[in-house]
Amino acid sequence: MTSRTTACLRALVLRAHACSRHHHHHHRTISTSVQGHPPTTTTNIPECYLPANSRPASSHTGPCGRVVSLRSHTCGELRCEHAGVKVALYGWVQYLRQDVFVVLRDHSGLTQVVISRDDNMPTGGIEVLAENLEVLNACRKLPFEIKDFLKKSESLRMRYRYLDLRSSQMQRNLRLRSRLSMRMREYLCNDHDFVDVETPTLFKRTPGGAKEFVVPSREPGRFYSLPQSPQQFKQLLMVAGVDRYFQFARCYRDEGSKPDRQPEFTQVDIEMSFVEQTGVMALVEGLLQYSWPPELGTLSWPFPCITYAEAMRDYGSDKPDTRFHMKLVDISEVFLNTEMEFLKSALSQSEGSIQAICVPGGGTLFKAKDLEALKETARTVFGQELSVVVLRADGSLKSALSKHLSPADTEGLLGKMGARPGDLLLVSACSLHTVRPLLGKLRLQCAGLLEARGVALRDPAEFHFLWVVDFPLFLPKEEDPGALESAHHPFTVRGQHYDLVLNGCEVGGGSIRIHKASEQLHVLKNILKEDDSLLSHLLEALDSGAPPHGGIALGLDRLVSLMVGAPSIRDVIAFPKSFRGHDLMSQAPDYVSEEDLKPYHISVTWPPAEGEGK
Amino acid sequence: MTSRTTACLRALVLRAHACSRHHHHHHRTISTSVQGHPPTTTTNIPECYLPANSRPASSHTGPCGRVVSLRSHTCGELRCEHAGVKVALYGWVQYLRQDVFVVLRDHSGLTQVVISRDDNMPTGGIEVLAENLEVLNACRKLPFEIKDFLKKSESLRMRYRYLDLRSSQMQRNLRLRSRLSMRMREYLCNDHDFVDVETPTLFKRTPGGAKEFVVPSREPGRFYSLPQSPQQFKQLLMVAGVDRYFQFARCYRDEGSKPDRQPEFTQVDIEMSFVEQTGVMALVEGLLQYSWPPELGTLSWPFPCITYAEAMRDYGSDKPDTRFHMKLVDISEVFLNTEMEFLKSALSQSEGSIQAICVPGGGTLFKAKDLEALKETARTVFGQELSVVVLRADGSLKSALSKHLSPADTEGLLGKMGARPGDLLLVSACSLHTVRPLLGKLRLQCAGLLEARGVALRDPAEFHFLWVVDFPLFLPKEEDPGALESAHHPFTVRGQHYDLVLNGCEVGGGSIRIHKASEQLHVLKNILKEDDSLLSHLLEALDSGAPPHGGIALGLDRLVSLMVGAPSIRDVIAFPKSFRGHDLMSQAPDYVSEEDLKPYHISVTWPPAEGEGK
Repeated sequence: MTSRTTACLRALVLRAHACSRHHHHHHRTISTSVQGHPPTTTTNIPECYLPANSRPASSHTGPCGRVVSLRSHTCGELRCEHAGVKVALYGWVQYLRQDVFVVLRDHSGLTQVVISRDDNMPTGGIEVLAENLEVLNACRKLPFEIKDFLKKSESLRMRYRYLDLRSSQMQRNLRLRSRLSMRMREYLCNDHDFVDVETPTLFKRTPGGAKEFVVPSREPGRFYSLPQSPQQFKQLLMVAGVDRYFQFARCYRDEGSKPDRQPEFTQVDIEMSFVEQTGVMALVEGLLQYSWPPELGTLSWPFPCITYAEAMRDYGSDKPDTRFHMKLVDISEVFLNTEMEFLKSALSQSEGSIQAICVPGGGTLFKAKDLEALKETARTVFGQELSVVVLRADGSLKSALSKHLSPADTEGLLGKMGARPGDLLLVSACSLHTVRPLLGKLRLQCAGLLEARGVALRDPAEFHFLWVVDFPLFLPKEEDPGALESAHHPFTVRGQHYDLVLNGCEVGGGSIRIHKASEQLHVLKNILKEDDSLLSHLLEALDSGAPPHGGIALGLDRLVSLMVGAPSIRDVIAFPKSFRGHDLMSQAPDYVSEEDLKPYHISVTWPPAEGEGK
Repeated sequence: MTSRTTACLRALVLRAHACSRHHHHHHRTISTSVQGHPPTTTTNIPECYLPANSRPASSHTGPCGRVVSLRSHTCGELRCEHAGVKVALYGWVQYLRQDVFVVLRDHSGLTQVVISRDDNMPTGGIEVLAENLEVLNACRKLPFEIKDFLKKSESLRMRYRYLDLRSSQMQRNLRLRSRLSMRMREYLCNDHDFVDVETPTLFKRTPGGAKEFVVPSREPGRFYSLPQSPQQFKQLLMVAGVDRYFQFARCYRDEGSKPDRQPEFTQVDIEMSFVEQTGVMALVEGLLQYSWPPELGTLSWPFPCITYAEAMRDYGSDKPDTRFHMKLVDISEVFLNTEMEFLKSALSQSEGSIQAICVPGGGTLFKAKDLEALKETARTVFGQELSVVVLRADGSLKSALSKHLSPADTEGLLGKMGARPGDLLLVSACSLHTVRPLLGKLRLQCAGLLEARGVALRDPAEFHFLWVVDFPLFLPKEEDPGALESAHHPFTVRGQHYDLVLNGCEVGGGSIRIHKASEQLHVLKNILKEDDSLLSHLLEALDSGAPPHGGIALGLDRLVSLMVGAPSIRDVIAFPKSFRGHDLMSQAPDYVSEEDLKPYHISVTWPPAEGEGK
């Protein structure tokens, strides 16, 4: 036995059998007692048949009381009323004090075990008096202690994930995720007749599937593809008459190094026949209400619903964080007769507009470097200059704009913005397609700055669900604005695409699908200019009496991370990859011998070494 | 509208709104009535608020009665008591009779809809009188009719899987699978505190993982591997203190063309800390009892349990079909003093034995070609000659052996075998390692032959679960009998490996794992001669206070296929691959352009064309 500090480092697995202290079974080698403080009545119950206090008795026993587990109770389960009861506990040593007290830990909590046999009675609601302790496994010196307050580097956490997962926060995250999934399944399967159907992950490459991993087969040149979603399969299941399908689907996306993305992720995938948009939305609201953990409060419904146009107009984003205001305001009319060249030129261009947001308290709270950071965002991300107007506490304006504004214009501007002394106005003038996303982004940046200055703007315990509807069917391609791409995906019925947003993050998206082959062909061939032969099986299926259908997919990792307030989805995934796509524990991906690649008829094309290439 | 035959071929999606016939709402354009036969009382209920008869009302509505689905009832739901009720039905046209009667089909069943408005009242419990029918989609001429009795080729079924799945048998299979999974989850998650944890499928190649698909990454030469099971992760989760883990895990195995195997399959993966073998077995028995569909009868428990040695001794198999007898009998002692050379030589070799099975009625039922087929199996699969002894109906023997047997020996043999006139004895003499699998295989072949001759030997509605325990830890490698391989896998504690067998098929396997790093290292390094550096992360984890733990994995596809009596696991998988690993609907795996392979630094090594190679 070692000192307290060292003992915390050594996670020994212990076994503590216990029996009634009031019936000193000295003939038993394995026995202790549970002491209540104050002591309560004593019951002697046959070992291993103890009903658990806070969980179903069946948790420890199987059918007809057959023993499933060696334990009688978990460490977090014992209460005063267990005094005198025989228990069998299993866990890890959290603390060892003076070789007398052992604090035993498992996933449910802690219990103090007294090793000494003298009749001392320490304070505390309950403790276990050990007559026998068995060390089940020894432990090397761990790379870090299992303590919640300990800050560990991300790479250390990932390399020793099996230790990192022992923290109470990660235990809570995994258990909440499991519980949420179970409740969702109950709602879909038991209450709404959905069928849980597993669809293949070894599939065919989809048109434009640049982000799909390939999997070589044993036939030369032929590859499977790991799909980004079961979209085709869910629609085929509707054609197959499955009527209501759901799946917690593993999806794959090869995006190289994007922060907070994972090469594999999970979506709650839902599809229904004979349904309209309102039906899918009502179903999802019911789903979240039913499965929402009570400790996170209750969800009110129906969820608010705004159009894509309203979201872009008011928040400059198609996934607005509605926990705070600071909405975008069109102030073009204030400047209709302006002499300022950059404003005039902005207004004269097609869809030109002058817009602003008002940051309450930003005028006094933000420092010069904050304003510079905001301008920097406008410049680097959007290629635009940003005008700032500081309202001093005395009501006077500090701005390059102010000298060009008449008192009436100033009054008009402040009135329109609802600005008060101490506030900050951010003004941008350019085309609508730029000014909205620009101010939308600055709005979030300002929220972060305000919070860094101590303003309680967004309550992490508040959950603002929001539907965004009436998306345009097609948007100009980001890389090639002359061509169009689907706003959602090419199987969507016009104007029937809906996104679910939580606290400014997209947590779901769906649509009513095109169910007529001729319409689908038109969209693929004439509008999106895709090679429709790659989807001939889907077109054939639609032509086989496909029912009207629609659905949604919820991003489970993102949803859970918002629910538990985790900064990254890596905190709600048991074994995530690093942002470079590596498993730091096992060192995957790893080198594979040429011999092992032979059956797949592939060989590695090594890039020229540094300094070697042309 | 077309003739009946053509209409059956055309699966049109229809919409039939209905209202009370007793309240002729002629002002409504979309209305029909439901007629009971004999008519019962009439209730007029607001549309879309109809309580469903056989399923929860919430199935059609969301929270607080908000409408989820457009239908008010499914086609299989209407009963006489719905007479007079307004309904909205959606489905496919199954039959069209004289342009008057439409039989509408959905996943739940059929309903007859009368299009004519005259007051005829045909027989049948209930029908829907349509005032409005809307065709929601048209349909090409299908490659086959959606009729259960229709025999289709496997390749046609696979190519048009979305039509094949419309059959009532496939609908039943998918729905039973979904229901079973749901019940299993309830038992594990709700009743026994298991945590559903998703583990990665993009992982590192395991030692000897010849059957693992590789997935190229964007780093030259580095590959992920699709794991055959989450074995390492489930053990790491125990080290992480998750205590009880389960997952319906997608697993991958690249075996090329093996009949009735799938490159991806699903296992119910379970692991527990602080548990012994009996605990895992009790848990699984409870799991199957809880989730067993009532229509398949009840399961009795505890399941019978035999040792590996007993299974091999009595059935010549480690997964015996215990629905029938025909056990192996050691008849060596009958022949201790035999003069027959091949028997003498068999007995003189190490572990030599003479064994036999008695096939009741085989002597009269089996034809000469049946006996030849049995001998052929012994010859081709095991390289052994088989002796057959036919007991004629008059009690006389027909066998090459008989003239070498004294009357006392004959009596001894027949007595030992419990043979009666009309029976057949199959006798084999060689080493135990051959004679047992040989007779085990012939036992099954004889069962098939007897059933082909009309004997009801194995009841497909009977479900005989059986535990096989006490497996040897290591078995000689099949390919290299001098070396050893793990009977289960290299993480198994000695003598703590158990298999679950159902009707002669292995449906699950598990073990108590090695939880001490030193023991695990010894097994990997000294016994199995594996490269332990590939498992260094697991060894490190065991050395971090790993608790004693064990678990099991159930093969869900196989289990469900046995439950529904399907000849192949392809009948319980929505979109299976062909035996060559192809998706016949989408033509996966498919060719991928060199351009698309570039980011993965691989190129295809084309084998030399026919006649070109050396």
